Amino acid sequence: MRATTIHAPYDIRVEDVPDAAVRHPKDAVVRVLRACICGSDLWAYRGEAEREPGQRIGHEFLGTVVETGSEVTGLRPGDLVVAPFMWSDGACEFCAEGLPTSCPNGGFWGANGSDGGQGEAVRVPHADGTLVKLPAEAAGDDRLLTALLALSDVMGTGHHAAVGAGVRPGSTVAVVGDGAVGLCGVLAAKRLGAERIIALGRHQARTDIARTFGATDVVAERGEAAVAAVRELTAGHGAHAVIEAVGTEQSMRTAVGITRPGGGIGWVGVPHGSGTGLDMGVLFARNIAVRGGVAPVRAYIPELLPDVLNGTIDPSPVFDLTVDLAGVPDGYRAMDDRSALKVLVKA
Amino acid sequence: MRATTIHAPYDIRVEDVPDAAVRHPKDAVVRVLRACICGSDLWAYRGEAEREPGQRIGHEFLGTVVETGSEVTGLRPGDLVVAPFMWSDGACEFCAEGLPTSCPNGGFWGANGSDGGQGEAVRVPHADGTLVKLPAEAAGDDRLLTALLALSDVMGTGHHAAVGAGVRPGSTVAVVGDGAVGLCGVLAAKRLGAERIIALGRHQARTDIARTFGATDVVAERGEAAVAAVRELTAGHGAHAVIEAVGTEQSMRTAVGITRPGGGIGWVGVPHGSGTGLDMGVLFARNIAVRGGVAPVRAYIPELLPDVLNGTIDPSPVFDLTVDLAGVPDGYRAMDDRSALKVLVKA
Repeated sequence: MRATTIHAPYDIRVEDVPDAAVRHPKDAVVRVLRACICGSDLWAYRGEAEREPGQRIGHEFLGTVVETGSEVTGLRPGDLVVAPFMWSDGACEFCAEGLPTSCPNGGFWGANGSDGGQGEAVRVPHADGTLVKLPAEAAGDDRLLTALLALSDVMGTGHHAAVGAGVRPGSTVAVVGDGAVGLCGVLAAKRLGAERIIALGRHQARTDIARTFGATDVVAERGEAAVAAVRELTAGHGAHAVIEAVGTEQSMRTAVGITRPGGGIGWVGVPHGSGTGLDMGVLFARNIAVRGGVAPVRAYIPELLPDVLNGTIDPSPVFDLTVDLAGVPDGYRAMDDRSALKVLVKA
Repeated sequence: MRATTIHAPYDIRVEDVPDAAVRHPKDAVVRVLRACICGSDLWAYRGEAEREPGQRIGHEFLGTVVETGSEVTGLRPGDLVVAPFMWSDGACEFCAEGLPTSCPNGGFWGANGSDGGQGEAVRVPHADGTLVKLPAEAAGDDRLLTALLALSDVMGTGHHAAVGAGVRPGSTVAVVGDGAVGLCGVLAAKRLGAERIIALGRHQARTDIARTFGATDVVAERGEAAVAAVRELTAGHGAHAVIEAVGTEQSMRTAVGITRPGGGIGWVGVPHGSGTGLDMGVLFARNIAVRGGVAPVRAYIPELLPDVLNGTIDPSPVFDLTVDLAGVPDGYRAMDDRSALKVLVKA
């Protein structure tokens, strides 16, 4: 089969690889209908996260089950399914607690020895625990399929940030990061009842989506000026709930600066850089909570799926460029130079 | 009147100072019956927090109202009252939200121009918002008065840590720090229904109090060995709720290491040191929440007071040395060399 591989920084290829196949009784094989490129894939692309030459890549996909192992009980060939960005067994104490990202049998797509989402098919370990069935009729709805694909990562991650930040009905929320996750954070905050949502960003195409998703205010400033602007919008105090969807020291510093005393920062940007951006003296004096991490999106899909199906939320606008599998290397280039927000890969 | 002053590191004196008096219509003057020395006073004592020569010190006290300003409506001379470690107006949006530590009219005892708790009397700004009335009959109960004094700081601060850590009925809790706040954290965790409480400490007098307060396990190791010991006690995962009551980079690092994925750290140790002790990669991978700060003890007194009055909780054992006002300098020496856990100052 054909799949995307990464060989060195900026060296992404689509190549022949061994066919995905059931290797363990709990495996399933999924033929990929939709995949995409994630902002976090760029860390590998840019050489800021190490990869073995030839390693697979891509961790968001949706497709059709084509084969199941002997111990898979909840799925059958032909089922339309979405995969979260990690697999998990669905049976351990962490999965039971809603934290499948800490499942001892869990793992990441594209890890050595496993398939990645940016390919023709994927072997899915612990298929019963990992995959979520979608209504068969969704397969015929192009826009809906794209929206459902967002459940594999960005929509669930935005939701995790909103939950971590403590968004409640009536909250004032600020969102640091105008990537797909930050935008989904706006959508998630709106869904959770936020009354005011301040999006930080300066790219009009992105802030337009933010407004569509529910942002009431846009702040184009950065750093200290952004902090001042958000404070001015919030009677000097900052937002009760702040979504941090970047992961740099600077973005975390901005998040701390715009959080109201007693408020919370929901952080989902993969941490990069040697420092934390967390001024402990400020966090202490203002009683600011910091809550987040790798989003347990598998646990959120059952809650978010009905709202995507019935149209209450539609994250599909975060995909602004579509390629086929052969076009994946072009997709990386477009995301790297920020000419694309998020790239959809259609089979 | 006589009051404690600090002139330089290790130079604590009891001297004549101007009498406490009503200066503003919302002031009250409280004659101090009980005060104490806090672990955080030691930062000033050791020169690690700066003070003006001659500045007052002490932020925990309980006593009798002797004078009220013209706009004080809820208190009258003769009332027995306890003061939280900060004053606050009781009228602003932050006070209404339960975060009096962010009150724009709030302040710290001992700040320049204000009285400290370690003296004969204290001028209390915003007396109606700040002071909490106690039953008059408590004045005749020596042990109860001492227990009630703990509401001015350590009991409320331990409670804040337990709340921040997310202690719930059935929780497994670990407590970093065997000072008075850590011990009150044990008591608070027990009160909130924790099933298992692991106290980290190696001073038997302190760990004995921890056991009296509800600790089920004691870990004497430090650093990496402490992390390993707590993990061994918790099936390898760590505690769901961790109370951090020290404030150093090392103690925060220990707290991060012993927190279960999906768990929380309630931190109330005043941050010291240039780093944070927060490994963002670990926090991210394990979805560990960090929540705490300067405890809004004024907001907690109404909840905790009934339980102290009816004996459900008795924090008085944290006071293990009693001095009179003239003995305060000796009290600092005893706390500095750790021969005393917490020093009670009796009028």
